[in-house]
Amino acid sequence: MKRPFTIETASASIQSSIRNAVISFDEMTVSVIKVTFENNGHQVNGYGFCSNGRYAQEGIIKNRFMPRLHKVSPDSLLDDNGVIDPLKCWSVFMQNEKPGGHGDRAVAAGALDMALWDVYAKAYQKPLWKILSEQFNDNQVDEQIFVYPGGGYYYPGKGYEGLKDEFKKYQEQGYKVMKMKVGGDSIEEDLRRIDAALSVVGFGKNLCVDANARFDLKEALAFAEAIHPYDLMWYEEPLDPDDFLSHAILAESYVPSLATGENLFSKHGLQNLLRHGGLRPDRDWIQLDPALSYGLTHYLQIIEMIESFGWSRRRLIPHGGHQLALNIAAGLQTGGSESYPGVFQPFGGFADGYEIVEGRVKPQQEPGLGIEQKGDLYRRLKEIFD
Amino acid sequence: MKRPFTIETASASIQSSIRNAVISFDEMTVSVIKVTFENNGHQVNGYGFCSNGRYAQEGIIKNRFMPRLHKVSPDSLLDDNGVIDPLKCWSVFMQNEKPGGHGDRAVAAGALDMALWDVYAKAYQKPLWKILSEQFNDNQVDEQIFVYPGGGYYYPGKGYEGLKDEFKKYQEQGYKVMKMKVGGDSIEEDLRRIDAALSVVGFGKNLCVDANARFDLKEALAFAEAIHPYDLMWYEEPLDPDDFLSHAILAESYVPSLATGENLFSKHGLQNLLRHGGLRPDRDWIQLDPALSYGLTHYLQIIEMIESFGWSRRRLIPHGGHQLALNIAAGLQTGGSESYPGVFQPFGGFADGYEIVEGRVKPQQEPGLGIEQKGDLYRRLKEIFD
Repeated sequence: MKRPFTIETASASIQSSIRNAVISFDEMTVSVIKVTFENNGHQVNGYGFCSNGRYAQEGIIKNRFMPRLHKVSPDSLLDDNGVIDPLKCWSVFMQNEKPGGHGDRAVAAGALDMALWDVYAKAYQKPLWKILSEQFNDNQVDEQIFVYPGGGYYYPGKGYEGLKDEFKKYQEQGYKVMKMKVGGDSIEEDLRRIDAALSVVGFGKNLCVDANARFDLKEALAFAEAIHPYDLMWYEEPLDPDDFLSHAILAESYVPSLATGENLFSKHGLQNLLRHGGLRPDRDWIQLDPALSYGLTHYLQIIEMIESFGWSRRRLIPHGGHQLALNIAAGLQTGGSESYPGVFQPFGGFADGYEIVEGRVKPQQEPGLGIEQKGDLYRRLKEIFD
Repeated sequence: MKRPFTIETASASIQSSIRNAVISFDEMTVSVIKVTFENNGHQVNGYGFCSNGRYAQEGIIKNRFMPRLHKVSPDSLLDDNGVIDPLKCWSVFMQNEKPGGHGDRAVAAGALDMALWDVYAKAYQKPLWKILSEQFNDNQVDEQIFVYPGGGYYYPGKGYEGLKDEFKKYQEQGYKVMKMKVGGDSIEEDLRRIDAALSVVGFGKNLCVDANARFDLKEALAFAEAIHPYDLMWYEEPLDPDDFLSHAILAESYVPSLATGENLFSKHGLQNLLRHGGLRPDRDWIQLDPALSYGLTHYLQIIEMIESFGWSRRRLIPHGGHQLALNIAAGLQTGGSESYPGVFQPFGGFADGYEIVEGRVKPQQEPGLGIEQKGDLYRRLKEIFD
């Protein structure tokens, strides 16, 4: 049987001068993927990329995942209708991978899995969220998805006015809740930045702060005490993502919401967070990013796991600000999605023409993920692959 | 300042027909590294490679680590004597890496860090274990290091006689304690294989079994019950490495020793195992592999961490069967080292001519790691790089 699909991958730069409390993004890259599938004599293209923050993963994709997909009988990768099946592909490309070590491999899998779901939904001529709703969520859908811009980065010369201008722009775009970076300066300086942000967004429940795992426990507790009176929407990644006990200690004294998970990468990491991290199902947020964590295929297990612990899937708001998270939020009814209207272009952000009203957005009506509807991203992908 | 060092890297195959309970090794690769350092007009070569099981990591080494070392002022990578300093290099090549996600990145760092320590010790014309002893261990040294062959793999047509012959060969080589794979067949079949092995090694304390994280909790408990009467040296990786709670439950009922850690990759993983895994400092074994876990530089922190939990460093017996683990065992006085006399050639195993007496071995007297003293490995490295 002739192989009915091809896979191409490349690295793309998303470098910028922004920094969070731990890293600068001046050398940041992502892997991009194009899967072409021959669907009844009709060519369907699917695109994927890994979320920002963990670099391109071409080596793992080219040297481990792609050869495994090329080695098996193509038949074994198709569903009953002869369409390339992301679930079957995932099982094959992850063969001979040892347990544990969920990091770069999870990122590589996230990019490849995204492209496979894009192709799959397009072959069925449906938006991905609709496929997800039909196959995994009893046809339930969210028509309005909570989104918030992950912004407020540090960059040279930005100042309070720069931060306020950035947040005003988000408001003009229709956002209500927004997020800023903290931990990259002294507590006093960060509090002044928070005051500046609050002067735009109005009150604490419209503002999240993100320390990007910068603090040790003592620092995290001190920062928590300082921001406690603001009653913020959430206090994100205060600690090393794998230091579950320190999260539990922090949750004992910090009453408002905590958020973490973008650097956990698997259901195994989530399981430990839920078992040992002391987070509270009535208020805290879990942010594993499907595009960094073995893809949507694995995210189905993430949802299963959080519910098996008695948590609502509404507590899941993925990191990453991409169309995949948006489709998951709509079709699987999680809590919403991060958004990158200003950063990590052209990979950050949603499709063009999305109208954000009161911090909520409707999913796209076009088949697949909606990558073609994001002009700058689609042009960049065409430049890379065509 | 002219850069006084060069770094080269390549992938090498160590494919073989062996399999453990979870993966086959028919597509296994490792990354190899050569660092050349100009030491007072004298060229010193250092070699490193990542341990088996997690594949080559050229992408991470070439695209992230090497550019960072090439970007900084060479001066900032040298110690007070002008010798390239592995600790300084580590801090630089890990810049702009986010917290969490300890997997392939840790493997890539392990290979590069190994080559840097090899070069460093050679520049000072001392065996690496001697450097470690002097700088980090108050000049204390172990002259006799406990080693055991990690063998007993499944392969087609091997049978009980094949297993017995393999173990007899290890005995002839001087080994006392040896390890076999389990979990790749039914419990009944594995018990018969264990009986066959015991008929050679004599009694339980000379035999370890390794399930390579194949079991869920129920299966791990059932297997534990079946092997309990044998009172084996240890029962290794019964469970998913990140499932700490299940380890604690297993340790409640299984009285003999447990061992795990080769798939944890960082002090963060170890911290969780010690906090939440219920392992017992008087009998259990921790097997993080320095060549898979951010290198010797990070392993210094692993030792610090295990001692901060009140454990003895003697409970550390690294996975990997390489000269790095042997040098660490000698110079930092950990519990010993795995050995690969029969598998993963030419990367597995120690230097030629090592005499193993009663399952113990003396460290090499030559400068560096002792890679030049392992003929087949050195020839392979020369083929790759020269």
